[in-house]
Amino acid sequence: MISKKALQLLIDKLGAQNVASEKEDLLVLGYDSTPGLHHLPDVVVYPTTTEGVQAAMEIAYEENMPITPRGSGTGLSGGSVPVQGGMVICLNRMNKILEIDEENLTATVEAGVVTLDLFNAVAEKGLFYPPDPGSQKISTLAGNVMEDAGGLRGLKYGVTRDYVMALKVVLPDGTILETGGKSVKDVAGYSLKDVMIGSEGTLGIITEITVSLIPPPQDKRTFLAYFDDVRVAGATVSEIIAAKIIPSTMEIMDKATINCVEDYVKIGLPREMAALLLIEVDGHPAVVAEEAEALERILQAKAAEVQSARDTEHAAELAAARRTALSALARVSPTTLLEDATVPRSRLAETFAEIERLTEKYQLKVGTFGHAGDGNLHPTVLCDERDADEMKRAHAFYDELYEQVLAWGGTVSGEHGIGVAKKDFLALQIGPGGVDVMRRIKNAFDPKGLLNPGKIIDGKQQ
Amino acid sequence: MISKKALQLLIDKLGAQNVASEKEDLLVLGYDSTPGLHHLPDVVVYPTTTEGVQAAMEIAYEENMPITPRGSGTGLSGGSVPVQGGMVICLNRMNKILEIDEENLTATVEAGVVTLDLFNAVAEKGLFYPPDPGSQKISTLAGNVMEDAGGLRGLKYGVTRDYVMALKVVLPDGTILETGGKSVKDVAGYSLKDVMIGSEGTLGIITEITVSLIPPPQDKRTFLAYFDDVRVAGATVSEIIAAKIIPSTMEIMDKATINCVEDYVKIGLPREMAALLLIEVDGHPAVVAEEAEALERILQAKAAEVQSARDTEHAAELAAARRTALSALARVSPTTLLEDATVPRSRLAETFAEIERLTEKYQLKVGTFGHAGDGNLHPTVLCDERDADEMKRAHAFYDELYEQVLAWGGTVSGEHGIGVAKKDFLALQIGPGGVDVMRRIKNAFDPKGLLNPGKIIDGKQQ
Repeated sequence: MISKKALQLLIDKLGAQNVASEKEDLLVLGYDSTPGLHHLPDVVVYPTTTEGVQAAMEIAYEENMPITPRGSGTGLSGGSVPVQGGMVICLNRMNKILEIDEENLTATVEAGVVTLDLFNAVAEKGLFYPPDPGSQKISTLAGNVMEDAGGLRGLKYGVTRDYVMALKVVLPDGTILETGGKSVKDVAGYSLKDVMIGSEGTLGIITEITVSLIPPPQDKRTFLAYFDDVRVAGATVSEIIAAKIIPSTMEIMDKATINCVEDYVKIGLPREMAALLLIEVDGHPAVVAEEAEALERILQAKAAEVQSARDTEHAAELAAARRTALSALARVSPTTLLEDATVPRSRLAETFAEIERLTEKYQLKVGTFGHAGDGNLHPTVLCDERDADEMKRAHAFYDELYEQVLAWGGTVSGEHGIGVAKKDFLALQIGPGGVDVMRRIKNAFDPKGLLNPGKIIDGKQQ
Repeated sequence: MISKKALQLLIDKLGAQNVASEKEDLLVLGYDSTPGLHHLPDVVVYPTTTEGVQAAMEIAYEENMPITPRGSGTGLSGGSVPVQGGMVICLNRMNKILEIDEENLTATVEAGVVTLDLFNAVAEKGLFYPPDPGSQKISTLAGNVMEDAGGLRGLKYGVTRDYVMALKVVLPDGTILETGGKSVKDVAGYSLKDVMIGSEGTLGIITEITVSLIPPPQDKRTFLAYFDDVRVAGATVSEIIAAKIIPSTMEIMDKATINCVEDYVKIGLPREMAALLLIEVDGHPAVVAEEAEALERILQAKAAEVQSARDTEHAAELAAARRTALSALARVSPTTLLEDATVPRSRLAETFAEIERLTEKYQLKVGTFGHAGDGNLHPTVLCDERDADEMKRAHAFYDELYEQVLAWGGTVSGEHGIGVAKKDFLALQIGPGGVDVMRRIKNAFDPKGLLNPGKIIDGKQQ
């Protein structure tokens, strides 16, 4: 519950049209894209300026009210679900592209700008913003920064962190912090910008972002390769990298995923195949020609079948089909448990073998897809949360898989974040010393522990 | 002074050959490459393992003794000078390259490996470690990470931060922290790795580093362009970037620097010219050919004279000449005050105009060189610290220059760090809120404030 006084203060500061506290307004803000997680907030505000965010934060901090920042709610680890109620600060009315600076190759946007809108706006100026998370059509830039979102082009072009140049952030105590700038090099003190990136809304609320842009690739070639054995597909990925070819995209889908996607989009994927790789090389035409030739040679030797995209439309259709993987899998069972295991690339084939072994051991239906070139897989258990035994087996599957992933030097999250969903795994990965340091950082930014509580790590306990 | 008990403990834990406390042994550890800064430590230890670093840290922490980590002492902001005495932990006996992983394109090294040694070792395997700070022949990897060192190839290839995948760090309380890994994506909690990079030895001591490697460029072309006006050289840099050419190197020297370098290395640089740009494009031969052509067209239109390097040796000679700039300037006056102003690239021409104006206003001798493509300039005042009035004018020159640089959205340090030298400027750049957050981070890692005290920011004051 929010006090009448606090509600009135919020209305005074942000305007009545930007504050909601009726249950029907709050219902949709209790979810993000994480299955099985729902908590109602007490109030939601839609600030339209940095100062509006600051005012809302100050009121909540004064009232000791938990604060959960939110963009479009496409997160997959519960980061924008208000698990302790309180105030949701929804940033999607701050959606202006403030500047595209063609001299310095930067763009400055408000927090709630949609990723694809930025991509399109800079493309009109002949520039390229590479990070392309699966949810790019609806995800917001601040959400991308807070989760350090990856995407299909991560292998060659990196992740969101690699493009963030400056942030404007409101800290829990209301301080407005500007960190970074348009200078391509900056070592003035600790990199607060890098502390904020990937902090999942637990250290501050981003209101403005400056990203770097690059010249777009001039040419592109897209291949599809089908395999009889998913482990061979994994080994092929390692072989391509070892041949010093760095594709812009190298995505994998296993048989279950191929079939679900084909049911959904009907583009003629061969249902009998164990795996497919979707590979794109891009850049200068001469480089693309050479890399495509070398790539085709490797693929012909390893794959059951190799197809080359006929044209740009066909290539776009294939990439779009890959982007539907999660939705396609989610259609076939009441509950979809999506994971985010990531391993050093050399372990990819072994990871597929391990997923196969565990699928059999725990008698589950699992579809695996992901960013093979990054070693970033999304093994997805298709289950029913009403079946307690199946859920128990699903969790045992993940526990055992992550144990192995960590033994191989992998990580429990490549791009979805820790949020609520992965908290138990974090200590396994970074050890009690690492957890302790993170807790101290959390406390340094948010001494009252009110900002996005229950995510990543719990504050206090010093 | 160190107590007899603590000294004996250090000898017991690290071996007598790795501990020194006689004045003649300590003298050389009182300096780094920052002019006018000298403080003797009380004891120096040379650990050979992570556990040795841990033991030394624990002893110092127990004794409330300041601890200063050190590599080769090539830093330019006083980061490795023990300004409060105490213990120097010198890491240059931890100099083993532990692994070059050709499957995952990574290398793992001990803290004290020399930058160029790593470069050469991976080059033998056909791989490329791009960061190349000016001091690469003697600087160490841990020093590079702690300062987030840049270099001549920063424009295209980025800085040290862009290549760090994992760190092993000993925290002030003796905790051994491992952060990051060989997975190319990792969003498991706050990026402690990124907090550590650029923290100038104030948060922990790095003992092991895993860096990413890339395939080397297959071809390279080197150009020298001479200009009658340094501002035209600056404008040319912006024009090249705006033409979407990203050279691997784009270095500038002004007239004073050209003359000092020519005095020093005698390779026939034209002394009458106002500025030179040293530009390299690299990559696939077809790309290099196209970029070289476009580049030459721009240079011919702007420069007084354009030369192309005859061959690899000539190109290497030109790059080597640029690397001598600081030493060459340092020869001509008793005191060399080197600065590290960095601006958004579009402000480069204006920055040169401002440096000219201030040189005249304060009646100083200034040589300016630096990484023009990064907007990262090293205006260097050639002076004599015994001349109090000249020193006062030199400081006024920098104060006024930095005020303007910050107004343009630049930074007070592009690559040399804050250390002792820039502490007063930091608050100007990041504001009191930013300083306060940094202080809280410092306290979170180092509650007693014993690790590299006096650098970047002072702890406590909460």
